[in-house]
Amino acid sequence: MPRYRITIEYDGSELVGWQKQANGLAVQTVIEAALTALTGEIADVAGAGRTDAGVHASGQVAHFDLSREWAPHTLVRALNVHVRPHPVSVLEAAAVADDFHARFSATRRHYRYRILNRAGPPALDRGRVWHVARSLDAEAMNRAARHLIGRHDFSSFRAAECQAKSPVKTLDRLEVGRDGEEIVVVTSARSFLHNQVRAMVGTLKLVGEGKWSEADLIRARDARDRSAAGQTAPAAGLCLTGVDYDSDTGRLQPEYR
Amino acid sequence: MPRYRITIEYDGSELVGWQKQANGLAVQTVIEAALTALTGEIADVAGAGRTDAGVHASGQVAHFDLSREWAPHTLVRALNVHVRPHPVSVLEAAAVADDFHARFSATRRHYRYRILNRAGPPALDRGRVWHVARSLDAEAMNRAARHLIGRHDFSSFRAAECQAKSPVKTLDRLEVGRDGEEIVVVTSARSFLHNQVRAMVGTLKLVGEGKWSEADLIRARDARDRSAAGQTAPAAGLCLTGVDYDSDTGRLQPEYR
Repeated sequence: MPRYRITIEYDGSELVGWQKQANGLAVQTVIEAALTALTGEIADVAGAGRTDAGVHASGQVAHFDLSREWAPHTLVRALNVHVRPHPVSVLEAAAVADDFHARFSATRRHYRYRILNRAGPPALDRGRVWHVARSLDAEAMNRAARHLIGRHDFSSFRAAECQAKSPVKTLDRLEVGRDGEEIVVVTSARSFLHNQVRAMVGTLKLVGEGKWSEADLIRARDARDRSAAGQTAPAAGLCLTGVDYDSDTGRLQPEYR
Repeated sequence: MPRYRITIEYDGSELVGWQKQANGLAVQTVIEAALTALTGEIADVAGAGRTDAGVHASGQVAHFDLSREWAPHTLVRALNVHVRPHPVSVLEAAAVADDFHARFSATRRHYRYRILNRAGPPALDRGRVWHVARSLDAEAMNRAARHLIGRHDFSSFRAAECQAKSPVKTLDRLEVGRDGEEIVVVTSARSFLHNQVRAMVGTLKLVGEGKWSEADLIRARDARDRSAAGQTAPAAGLCLTGVDYDSDTGRLQPEYR
């Protein structure tokens, strides 16, 4: 059974998230249905990141097995016909080794969080940003963010329903910058706890508003208690922008764009 | 009667355009209804650019008169409450002189056109871009675009229903560049003919595909005949990004962001 890896973009606004659920349409369901429509086969699709309802992706990665060989560009074109009319787009496809696993082979995940920081609510980016009218100090947020980089117990930034075995994670990158009216937070790690990015952003917002100092953020981190940190930022601002793989399992090589 | 100028962002996807019409909801109607809800008065709202159905704005400008004085930031906040749930956002407001007119005082209008140039259709930017799967040569498009800059008879790029007295316009700027998977066209002029930007973009696409040379574009321009030029690019990719005014009528000074 040849194995394929695909890269996917989706608008999470009206989806229940990546993973199949009883209460609505998941990205996984859309892709599996498209594969069945295309091949007549039932394929299990595994994704790199289990994004929540409302969270977007511009670089989600998934894999599946098919009984016959497909030219990657044919797979891209045909899947995009069959995912219609859902807000899901297959950006590229590649044949990969049998031991490639979108989730377990991933060495790093990249997320971006967008805050629209102006008086007027979003019209063009509604559902894509967190609207915060009060002016935020992006530089202060970026300075504070450095205290979360590295290996820490992230219990203070972990949803109650998180299924990870350990709350200890290594955060490789967490940067906050201003781009006009937007505050953009970019972060990378091998893996994240459930809601970790959104909890970190909600906490950094307290620093941006001047309500919290860097010392407050360090105390929240060290409390290892979710109630010690800030709110969980809304799903709308979050986007999974990419996933890295070791070269031996095939780091993303665009076959067709 | 104090006069106010507002800057507005809107998602044109589900609107019939700027101007009031019988067949659906216009941006002008949304703003006028919000003003009536706020003040109890009936105000005529004049806009700088009469954008068509599906066309967006990140910097539309409009003016209206109210019977009493309003603090600009109060006006912004209150109007944004009353435009809900429509995808319209008031970004700023300012008191202006009695002779300021959003349309007639405008000295320059700025538009951006976005083409998503990749195999996969847009998921996150659906309704915001023109999807062209075939690879386009942005540099060739930019070179050809120079032949449209300056004073020309733009009859070849004018909708049949255009109401302008003369087809002769002066195009100040028309630049095409690539930003990753996107081709971005930016253009500026004192005023444009109806559908002029979309017709220019649809024609430049022929150059980007390699179907047309620069000489073909010049011939199309000089034909002064709409059928000699390319298709009208879809409304979705177009956005009115800003409007300039002379300093004497009050060039945009953000009062509140």
